[in-house]
Amino acid sequence: MRAARLYEYDEHMNVELKLDNIPAPQISKPGEVIVRVGAAGLCRTDLHIIEGVWKDIQDPQRTLLPYVLGHENAGWVEDVGPGVTSVKVGDPVICHPLRSCGVCLGCRRGEDMYCEHGSFPGLNCDGGFADYLLTNERALIKLNPNVAPVDVAPLADAGITAYRVAKKAARKLTPGQYCVVLGVGGLGHVALQSLHELCGARTIAVDRSENARKLARELGAHHVLDGGDHVVQEVRELTRGGAHAVIDFVGELGAEQLSWQMLRQGGTHYIVGYGGAVQVPTVHMVISEIAIEGSLVGNYLELVELMELNAEGRVKLHGQHYRLEQINTAIDDFKHRRIIGRGVIIP
Amino acid sequence: MRAARLYEYDEHMNVELKLDNIPAPQISKPGEVIVRVGAAGLCRTDLHIIEGVWKDIQDPQRTLLPYVLGHENAGWVEDVGPGVTSVKVGDPVICHPLRSCGVCLGCRRGEDMYCEHGSFPGLNCDGGFADYLLTNERALIKLNPNVAPVDVAPLADAGITAYRVAKKAARKLTPGQYCVVLGVGGLGHVALQSLHELCGARTIAVDRSENARKLARELGAHHVLDGGDHVVQEVRELTRGGAHAVIDFVGELGAEQLSWQMLRQGGTHYIVGYGGAVQVPTVHMVISEIAIEGSLVGNYLELVELMELNAEGRVKLHGQHYRLEQINTAIDDFKHRRIIGRGVIIP
Amino acid sequence: MRAARLYEYDEHMNVELKLDNIPAPQISKPGEVIVRVGAAGLCRTDLHIIEGVWKDIQDPQRTLLPYVLGHENAGWVEDVGPGVTSVKVGDPVICHPLRSCGVCLGCRRGEDMYCEHGSFPGLNCDGGFADYLLTNERALIKLNPNVAPVDVAPLADAGITAYRVAKKAARKLTPGQYCVVLGVGGLGHVALQSLHELCGARTIAVDRSENARKLARELGAHHVLDGGDHVVQEVRELTRGGAHAVIDFVGELGAEQLSWQMLRQGGTHYIVGYGGAVQVPTVHMVISEIAIEGSLVGNYLELVELMELNAEGRVKLHGQHYRLEQINTAIDDFKHRRIIGRGVIIP
Amino acid sequence: MRAARLYEYDEHMNVELKLDNIPAPQISKPGEVIVRVGAAGLCRTDLHIIEGVWKDIQDPQRTLLPYVLGHENAGWVEDVGPGVTSVKVGDPVICHPLRSCGVCLGCRRGEDMYCEHGSFPGLNCDGGFADYLLTNERALIKLNPNVAPVDVAPLADAGITAYRVAKKAARKLTPGQYCVVLGVGGLGHVALQSLHELCGARTIAVDRSENARKLARELGAHHVLDGGDHVVQEVRELTRGGAHAVIDFVGELGAEQLSWQMLRQGGTHYIVGYGGAVQVPTVHMVISEIAIEGSLVGNYLELVELMELNAEGRVKLHGQHYRLEQINTAIDDFKHRRIIGRGVIIP
Repeated sequence: MRAARLYEYDEHMNVELKLDNIPAPQISKPGEVIVRVGAAGLCRTDLHIIEGVWKDIQDPQRTLLPYVLGHENAGWVEDVGPGVTSVKVGDPVICHPLRSCGVCLGCRRGEDMYCEHGSFPGLNCDGGFADYLLTNERALIKLNPNVAPVDVAPLADAGITAYRVAKKAARKLTPGQYCVVLGVGGLGHVALQSLHELCGARTIAVDRSENARKLARELGAHHVLDGGDHVVQEVRELTRGGAHAVIDFVGELGAEQLSWQMLRQGGTHYIVGYGGAVQVPTVHMVISEIAIEGSLVGNYLELVELMELNAEGRVKLHGQHYRLEQINTAIDDFKHRRIIGRGVIIP
Repeated sequence: MRAARLYEYDEHMNVELKLDNIPAPQISKPGEVIVRVGAAGLCRTDLHIIEGVWKDIQDPQRTLLPYVLGHENAGWVEDVGPGVTSVKVGDPVICHPLRSCGVCLGCRRGEDMYCEHGSFPGLNCDGGFADYLLTNERALIKLNPNVAPVDVAPLADAGITAYRVAKKAARKLTPGQYCVVLGVGGLGHVALQSLHELCGARTIAVDRSENARKLARELGAHHVLDGGDHVVQEVRELTRGGAHAVIDFVGELGAEQLSWQMLRQGGTHYIVGYGGAVQVPTVHMVISEIAIEGSLVGNYLELVELMELNAEGRVKLHGQHYRLEQINTAIDDFKHRRIIGRGVIIP
Repeated sequence: MRAARLYEYDEHMNVELKLDNIPAPQISKPGEVIVRVGAAGLCRTDLHIIEGVWKDIQDPQRTLLPYVLGHENAGWVEDVGPGVTSVKVGDPVICHPLRSCGVCLGCRRGEDMYCEHGSFPGLNCDGGFADYLLTNERALIKLNPNVAPVDVAPLADAGITAYRVAKKAARKLTPGQYCVVLGVGGLGHVALQSLHELCGARTIAVDRSENARKLARELGAHHVLDGGDHVVQEVRELTRGGAHAVIDFVGELGAEQLSWQMLRQGGTHYIVGYGGAVQVPTVHMVISEIAIEGSLVGNYLELVELMELNAEGRVKLHGQHYRLEQINTAIDDFKHRRIIGRGVIIP
Repeated sequence: MRAARLYEYDEHMNVELKLDNIPAPQISKPGEVIVRVGAAGLCRTDLHIIEGVWKDIQDPQRTLLPYVLGHENAGWVEDVGPGVTSVKVGDPVICHPLRSCGVCLGCRRGEDMYCEHGSFPGLNCDGGFADYLLTNERALIKLNPNVAPVDVAPLADAGITAYRVAKKAARKLTPGQYCVVLGVGGLGHVALQSLHELCGARTIAVDRSENARKLARELGAHHVLDGGDHVVQEVRELTRGGAHAVIDFVGELGAEQLSWQMLRQGGTHYIVGYGGAVQVPTVHMVISEIAIEGSLVGNYLELVELMELNAEGRVKLHGQHYRLEQINTAIDDFKHRRIIGRGVIIP
């Protein structure tokens, strides 16, 4: 099969993925499933992997290369192991990014990402920038009849990461309160829509790109700001004292320090983007009684919920399509912020 | 001032309110406020009061009559006691139905209805079917500039009762799950809108009246049923196994027994309407692990939240207007189900 | 192997289990495990099964008999399927009663009892009143080194049922509030201890048996009542207005109707025992804003938590031992309330 | 009356309080209450006030001095305003530190510390190191008959700060999980006891002082560590992967940076002590999905709950007594860590 593989990490990203012809994956365990890839989302984490940011975590022994990237996958079931009962060959499916065990305490709690024996195709084993992908039954959700893989693949990771944090924030937010969404890209635009569905609070979208702000307005953000020098002050005035929640999809370049300053007493700063560092005096944490919370990729149940919202047309993905052969063009466009919404690779 | 007063309880409702001319109420305590009534909602509880259903609770000593009905009030501040600081004369306000103390544990928990020293104008003291109403500072919410008393008065009781139960249900509901709303009248139509704002679940509106079903469709109910003989079966099929929540605004005439039968395992039946009785085998409660919960009028904070949704046009009240002189006509229309949405009395 | 089997349902319980010699179970699927039974608890549900109360649920086709009862099992791993990784032969284990699939939404939520493809050994397939039991990897928890199967077997079902409901109640209870425990038998005595560990509320134990009351006092119940004619009044006085929670382990013979009458406004009546029916006017549900909730057997995570409390000596099981040959004596003692705490069958 | 007043802020604390004879406070508003001080706790915040750490917050106009310190007060009602109904002259009471309004949204939510119109005796107006204290009805809790002011005064602030954070942590902790308590002083020793009452998790007490560790052991901490160089590693080993919660009562001198490193994935670091700053890479926040939360003084309801636990002997305060004349000795002992538990000033 065709597969786009990474051969070396490079801090400066002066490397391209190579389109190889390699043997398709085979089933070796009862619960495994082969998926014919219909589409695979392109994620900022892919860039970070290429840069080597993650290599100590996903590839500590340096035995992984060359391998296939792509961890936001959807397609059709091609083959199933003998223990699989919930999907059959031909079913259209979206793949939760984790291949989890179902037995450890993390899985029991429904938090697939905490699985003690999980693997993460596209991160620490072969992913979906290829014709076929090896995953397992526990990762799969059957698509609703009116939904095509190409329209949803990035929901598998970008989507549920945004949905998870929106759901966390929504749980505490009430009508009349304010939630800031910092960064309206592949994740932020899903978070905005999810917030509008999950709670009655008002949203304030912040992005330096005019295209992103346009998208935010179309998606019904109650306020849209351009993230200029006075953004903290603007938010504090707009909210008459500070936002109740800030979701930071940037997490670097200073955004992470502005975020908690936008909060009112009792507010929460959710961190999803990364690269920088938060630094807060403990006296401020205490007097303002604020919380700062990291948020990870969503779990399987969250993907189920998001797929329901998507099937009803309530949360849509704005994507830009590329053929598998164009993978390096897609990566280049992404690096230079030429993609609106999410890039999607189609084998 | 003019005031519509009840002179006797009558099981068969063969009595009318009498439009009296009585002295306007005066302030006697530091926290009290006089409100010039702009509008007062007409509630099914008013009918029940006239019938004497509530007399052992609101009037155990039988010393109350004659008195002024009307517990869903909005208007303008006319006079304030010396301890009042948060509103001033002329402010347009909506009145939470309870005049609560702010000191007891119920008030501390934010549950004004649990106040140990509260009074309830229109129930156990003079209410708002009159030119002026005596209440206190803790009951008042200033209206947003674009909101008029006549458009919101019934939110003060019908509205928050519906909002409270919708919020309870929403807290447990996720996208893809189902909530049945039984009865789309003055409360039900607010609950439907609130559910759509507060969570991503699907709603199933049930009402025997075609007008009510039409309203439900306009408000975006995902499914609308006519509540015929097979309604339990219809809900179970539509939801592939039972609803996750049922909100029963009827609570009598058999609806209360159908409600919990519509639930799937782990579901919750919320009771708001009353008159009948639920009867469930304990073995069914246990095996199905269902919950049955009564739900009361909302608290002050819930009214604040609802007013925010209303000010943004996200939860609207459908009302039918009557002048104070027409109070008995309004009551008659209500009895004979000739009111769509909520009746509103304007002094 | 030896196995105590039921050959017919009998409403009057004029039947005995028969001690058969049958082939030991064999592994046929990758995730299955054979457990050598160390001990099996005797449960009131076993009596109900014999009476035929459950036959329409566990045996709708009437194809089950004869079969082995016993659903509260602990012992040692005897054999494992090829897919099993978390336990090995010889490990001492306790068995969650459900053999769940790990793939359906119920399992994902951590609610093993809601598994769409689960089986329940001792209920709808062969159980643990035998030398060996067939279960699966997902059902097993390794015992702490200092814990023996015979000391914990009934925690597998009676224990987690009591723990689950105690945990539900504890989540809402605060110091100074009151929780009534109605029935201090096999479940109630675990609930009492669990409540004391999980929250700071006060407990009121109610039982008609002097032995049970003695046990309640030893376990630190803050108040102990004998459940006489005035028990509702006694609870209301003791609690100055009603209990915040009532856990009803009886669920029949009138207890189910007394329970919700013991509640104060906003309180919750948890139903665990069954046989009777609750009947409550909807107006009472609404005005008192009470909730009535059924509660089922606990999930795997709840068993993990309970085993931790048990290993630390904070929740102990009071049991009475019988050899497998004495199974019918044990059943007879149980019927005639001659067992204090829980009966335990040892093969 | 006698009153210990501060005349100037001094960074190096080279100042003493002066024992003045000043007029006793008088009632001027309907809800006010004069309390005859029975005892007043000495708090680290008093030292910080003297140092001037708080002056920009409590005394921005520099108009406060000289004034009476002391914000942890208990005593007897001496006089009540005309609007007061829930306490009467002679009642023994403990004073919540905030004099809150009862009308703003903060008060409605039960979070007295968020009151928009509150004052804080001993911080921004005259406090309790004196014979009499001016407060209001909303601040008062009547003491149980068996409780004396001198035994509980510090619960009014130190106590509820510790209780609040313990309650937050307990809400997420389950049996078998671990909570680290960093610093076993006036707050930490209350937090330890509260955790033991509110949840079934295990506690790990950390303190550099042998006396504090001794107290921790007496209070039943499951593990006690001396906070040496390897404390992070010790906690990670003891907990097999990291603690589920860390409560940091130090908040400076490096403790604030060690705290979040002790956490396992999904854990929470609660900050109560202050002086330093937390600095965490956003990538760590995300991958570990940890939360860092500030926690403030508890609210009135939390003080009610704590008083119940105290009245039952389940949470005790370890105090060291001083006469009002010895106030400067007490401060000196506190500075030099010669007080075990909490210093208490008795007028």
